[in-house]
Amino acid sequence: MAAVALVQGASRGLGLEFCRNILINKAPGALIATCRNPDNAAELMSLVAQHPGKVTVLKLDVNREDDIQRAAEHVKKEFGKVDLIINSSAMLHPSGKGETSLKDVSAQGIISTLTTNTVGPLVMAKYFAPLLQKGSGAFGQQPPEKAKQHSGIIVNITAKVGSIGDNGLGGWYSYRMSKAALNMATRNLSIELGRSRPRVVCVSMHPGTVNTDLSRPYHKNVPKDKLFSTSHSVHCLMSIIDSLNIDKTGKAYNWNGSELPW
Amino acid sequence: MAAVALVQGASRGLGLEFCRNILINKAPGALIATCRNPDNAAELMSLVAQHPGKVTVLKLDVNREDDIQRAAEHVKKEFGKVDLIINSSAMLHPSGKGETSLKDVSAQGIISTLTTNTVGPLVMAKYFAPLLQKGSGAFGQQPPEKAKQHSGIIVNITAKVGSIGDNGLGGWYSYRMSKAALNMATRNLSIELGRSRPRVVCVSMHPGTVNTDLSRPYHKNVPKDKLFSTSHSVHCLMSIIDSLNIDKTGKAYNWNGSELPW
Repeated sequence: MAAVALVQGASRGLGLEFCRNILINKAPGALIATCRNPDNAAELMSLVAQHPGKVTVLKLDVNREDDIQRAAEHVKKEFGKVDLIINSSAMLHPSGKGETSLKDVSAQGIISTLTTNTVGPLVMAKYFAPLLQKGSGAFGQQPPEKAKQHSGIIVNITAKVGSIGDNGLGGWYSYRMSKAALNMATRNLSIELGRSRPRVVCVSMHPGTVNTDLSRPYHKNVPKDKLFSTSHSVHCLMSIIDSLNIDKTGKAYNWNGSELPW
Repeated sequence: MAAVALVQGASRGLGLEFCRNILINKAPGALIATCRNPDNAAELMSLVAQHPGKVTVLKLDVNREDDIQRAAEHVKKEFGKVDLIINSSAMLHPSGKGETSLKDVSAQGIISTLTTNTVGPLVMAKYFAPLLQKGSGAFGQQPPEKAKQHSGIIVNITAKVGSIGDNGLGGWYSYRMSKAALNMATRNLSIELGRSRPRVVCVSMHPGTVNTDLSRPYHKNVPKDKLFSTSHSVHCLMSIIDSLNIDKTGKAYNWNGSELPW
């Protein structure tokens, strides 16, 4: 069956670019694009219009478990499977700025960030895992041995600053903590969903510092050649996805394919 | 000035035992014992009665930022400093059982666990850091060079299952994620509070599998010599605390003093 991909957080930034890249380069049978507010997603809707009959847009707030459950039921009914899920939506902090020091920390700020960046992707996995287990393995690289083949792939967009071992600067408490916890979720998912067939490959990926709304307040501090366009970043990440197999599950990858420490 | 220690989550389990150990072995000037419900903390109250004039019990729900702020203001007024804070309270999951698989995962379960186990200790650090910076360095091991001496210590009780790199079994999504995020908080705190004087040492510590309410549902699976009494576990952890200095900050330690991977 033709490939089915789902991008969560598809209205802008990396998520929108993943949609564009997959539609152009992968000729999928279907692309499911989810976002909080489809009525405000003009760029996504224009992409939909350019690829008639290919894209299903679903309203999904990753903070709402019932939205996620409803989306999974819809996808099950319409397509019966998913081959690739990319969890892309994230926030730096509800204020738009990462905490520079402890005095900026608030319980509510951390909880909001954790809910969107960490809990959301895991609850996505909960409801979509059965559909990924029905996938046809249309993404990644399948080894010849049937026993090692995978049915689906989960990509959680993480961040290098979510690496505890790599943390030499501090700050950005909420964001760093949310991505460290997301990496644990990835690792746990890779174990549960990789243990027996059908196998689902689960990875975290760092997109580099990308020219998006999330990083906008910090662009002036980023050397020009380190600030990636969304198309460059997604091009790099799709190359990694193309190479994924069950031996590569349960890890965090940098945009250049190198492995990130936890 | 005589040592001031604070144990958060002091009504039972490890927290209660930390209080007992510190009162007996450290002869502190003051011990502040916080718990959600002092009226239900009979064992703690009996300990208070055995050490007249030494223990201040404060009502503090680690999920409530205003409780934490009020406790810090009280401690500031009464003692003006803290030398050691131990964040001990934690839950496995609101149900009392860790998730054995994805189907047990719920957004609300993860958020509750993260709020108690992760957000609470960080918000404690926010309000108590200024008091730790006024500490006299009464705990740990002070090096002769004044520039490297520390004023206070934060101990976050983590868990080996919160190590992403060590995770080979999966399951327990909420608890594992909460402890991975707590380890990131420890690391971030160690950077912010270790950068310049006064320095605060911040570490995570794994107490082993301890005979407490948290682990009770799993005791039958633990070999007898691996199930520690609270007094054995706290004895081990206090030995590590006795050896802490600024060179040992920002790490996660196993009960035997070895370093845990992130």
